[in-house]
Amino acid sequence: MDLALAEAQKAALMGEVPVGAVIVDPAGNVLASAGNRTRRDSDPTAHAEMLAIRQAAKFLGNDRLLGCTLYVTLEPCAMCAGALSHARVSRVIYGAPDPKSGGTDHGARVFEHSQAHHRPEVVGGISEVACSMLISDFFASLRFKD
Amino acid sequence: MDLALAEAQKAALMGEVPVGAVIVDPAGNVLASAGNRTRRDSDPTAHAEMLAIRQAAKFLGNDRLLGCTLYVTLEPCAMCAGALSHARVSRVIYGAPDPKSGGTDHGARVFEHSQAHHRPEVVGGISEVACSMLISDFFASLRFKD
Repeated sequence: MDLALAEAQKAALMGEVPVGAVIVDPAGNVLASAGNRTRRDSDPTAHAEMLAIRQAAKFLGNDRLLGCTLYVTLEPCAMCAGALSHARVSRVIYGAPDPKSGGTDHGARVFEHSQAHHRPEVVGGISEVACSMLISDFFASLRFKD
Repeated sequence: MDLALAEAQKAALMGEVPVGAVIVDPAGNVLASAGNRTRRDSDPTAHAEMLAIRQAAKFLGNDRLLGCTLYVTLEPCAMCAGALSHARVSRVIYGAPDPKSGGTDHGARVFEHSQAHHRPEVVGGISEVACSMLISDFFASLRFKD
């Protein structure tokens, strides 16, 4: 999660919403890490989780990340939850819950429907304080600029 | 929808699940078109809708596709529905409903939760027979190969 937090901090410096993600294989090797890049890339799909999934799948030459774990600083949204299911990721470890935009433990709860053909194990609240503070500090600084 | 069907047919020829998508701007200009490429690109996020969204956003140099319409041959899944919401697409016109994997009118029903901060207008069942037949023929041909 420390590496995911570092990616989130880098994203904040670029003016992106500070979320970071890391994918680790079953042996503990880091396959991919990324921070949000939606603004910089003009790409509404460029959430940290999506970029990490694409990077890891490309590295493995396989569209399935069997046995892999994704660490992310914020609860995934519905888009990212859907992608994690398609990628057959085994575990999702997230930092801060996201009642406003989350899609795993809030709102669409993507993994709880039979239309999600794979349901990763999900653990939330890891390094929650540090992950939450990054987000709240970022939005507070935006308000200060207005 | 004819162009989306043509993209789906091209995807089938490549051994991909035959789904095609097209994005049109408010003046009716085609901004992007794509077929599924998950296998070919080793990318679990490479659904037709996602590729079309990324292509259109890159073309416009903007992560928001305000006023745009997406045509797709199959009901979008939760991942694609989430992306369409993030991209602020105005309308989603789909062909065949997808009770097994859909995420707009089935399962997660992504647009029906307050966590989806933008809800496109959704119209399903356009060219439904042609769109459904493409999918069913594709899966029948796979079973025949076994």
